Amino acid sequence: MTSPARMERPSDANLLPSVAARHAYRSGTAASTAGVANGFVQGNLAILPEKLAGAFHRFCQLNPKPCPIIGMSEVGNPKIPSLGLDLDIRTDVPGYRVWRDGEVVEEPTDIMAHWRDDLVTFVLGCSFSFEEALMADDLPLRHIECGVRVPMYRTNIACSPSGPFAGPMVVSMRPLKPAQAIRAVQITTRFPSVHGAPVHLGHPHSIGIADIGKPDYGDAVPIAPDEIPVFWACGVTPQAVIAAAKLPFAITHAPGLMLVTDLKNKQLAVL
Amino acid sequence: MTSPARMERPSDANLLPSVAARHAYRSGTAASTAGVANGFVQGNLAILPEKLAGAFHRFCQLNPKPCPIIGMSEVGNPKIPSLGLDLDIRTDVPGYRVWRDGEVVEEPTDIMAHWRDDLVTFVLGCSFSFEEALMADDLPLRHIECGVRVPMYRTNIACSPSGPFAGPMVVSMRPLKPAQAIRAVQITTRFPSVHGAPVHLGHPHSIGIADIGKPDYGDAVPIAPDEIPVFWACGVTPQAVIAAAKLPFAITHAPGLMLVTDLKNKQLAVL
Repeated sequence: MTSPARMERPSDANLLPSVAARHAYRSGTAASTAGVANGFVQGNLAILPEKLAGAFHRFCQLNPKPCPIIGMSEVGNPKIPSLGLDLDIRTDVPGYRVWRDGEVVEEPTDIMAHWRDDLVTFVLGCSFSFEEALMADDLPLRHIECGVRVPMYRTNIACSPSGPFAGPMVVSMRPLKPAQAIRAVQITTRFPSVHGAPVHLGHPHSIGIADIGKPDYGDAVPIAPDEIPVFWACGVTPQAVIAAAKLPFAITHAPGLMLVTDLKNKQLAVL
Repeated sequence: MTSPARMERPSDANLLPSVAARHAYRSGTAASTAGVANGFVQGNLAILPEKLAGAFHRFCQLNPKPCPIIGMSEVGNPKIPSLGLDLDIRTDVPGYRVWRDGEVVEEPTDIMAHWRDDLVTFVLGCSFSFEEALMADDLPLRHIECGVRVPMYRTNIACSPSGPFAGPMVVSMRPLKPAQAIRAVQITTRFPSVHGAPVHLGHPHSIGIADIGKPDYGDAVPIAPDEIPVFWACGVTPQAVIAAAKLPFAITHAPGLMLVTDLKNKQLAVL
């Protein structure tokens, strides 16, 4: 693993921070992308054989809040120029998970050895983008204040199934005071391609969350008496759905090690 | 009081429903404007001497959520052409309240006898306009389902004072399921000139409401266990503030008997 200083080598001085970060990952850096290339969109990764890609694409189409597609490759092509001119999806993510029959069989830092001419790449929006907009509006994010991962929960909200892809929506939770929650609805409504407006607030049990103190993914955070839990559709949904489908073969990013793109978060605002 | 059929006299056949309604009120009809001229904006009325109008105008400027101005007259001029070409504010509201030293001294159906050359008229937005948009989106409005007035509450949210005008914000409450509440935030955000987005949801006690079952104005409505109370700034705020200011002289509309304008509710949407 290379130190972060690696990204500031002189030859990268004129590069976008996102491109410099990808160059570092391409050279083998395997660090978390949290806080990297601030302002630039990071994405969840799903790479599937063409035979399964159609059903997955339709799954995303049917469930746009948890699975917003921000980029997609041609079959067999490792490039996605709309997300970065020089981007190579086989090398530019800091860490990958290779899945076989629903199990993670390897966690490499590149997938050159696994690449096939029938693979299709999907890049899905991530809450980092709307969190930037929330923080820019001075809304507090408890998990960041606490220095932990955002708490995530499986819900009783069923995704619309497509082929082998089915399962419950996973949501992330941020506690906010009511007036802040209203403001957060307004802000995140502007970002439909990174999960958009919340899917729920206030009544965890209504969406099948029995114990708000016990997230299914990430870490628990405290909720003050004058706050309400606000729930957004989460990019862990497609990851969980891919795992549950027990596909013969799939590749995703490793948790927290996302694809850094050349899109600006601000560019995702529809208004 | 004239029967509603009065509004359908042949000579009104080619008039806008809003103009026909005002003609009826001008002739002495004193009925509630609820459900009248559907689709057209109705407004709260505040008529003040010029000497007080500046401070009240500033009060509205400082508190746009409870006091959104949708029309204003010149000093001494009973016309507000932007709200209706032939509108005469002295006769076209179905019922008025004349206030002296903070007391209602008369409830006439026109104010010809009270008109003065120093009077300034303010017309303020009303929740009827955003309720139309909520219903168009199939969101349920409990008070309408129950056939009662919307429940309203004095809060501990202080309005910014201006001269003699000061007091707490009054809010109206509509119970909604959480996903409906999120949708309602989006819809009403589009209508800043008729109170806009909610000011609170979920925690009545946080805004000084001790008993949600006992509104200060209007009628109580049931809240289901899977619903949350959603609170909007309310046009009763300026009425309450004017009453509390104990002004030597002021005129407002009588409760439920609003000014019907020629603006369409849809025209108030900013997006």
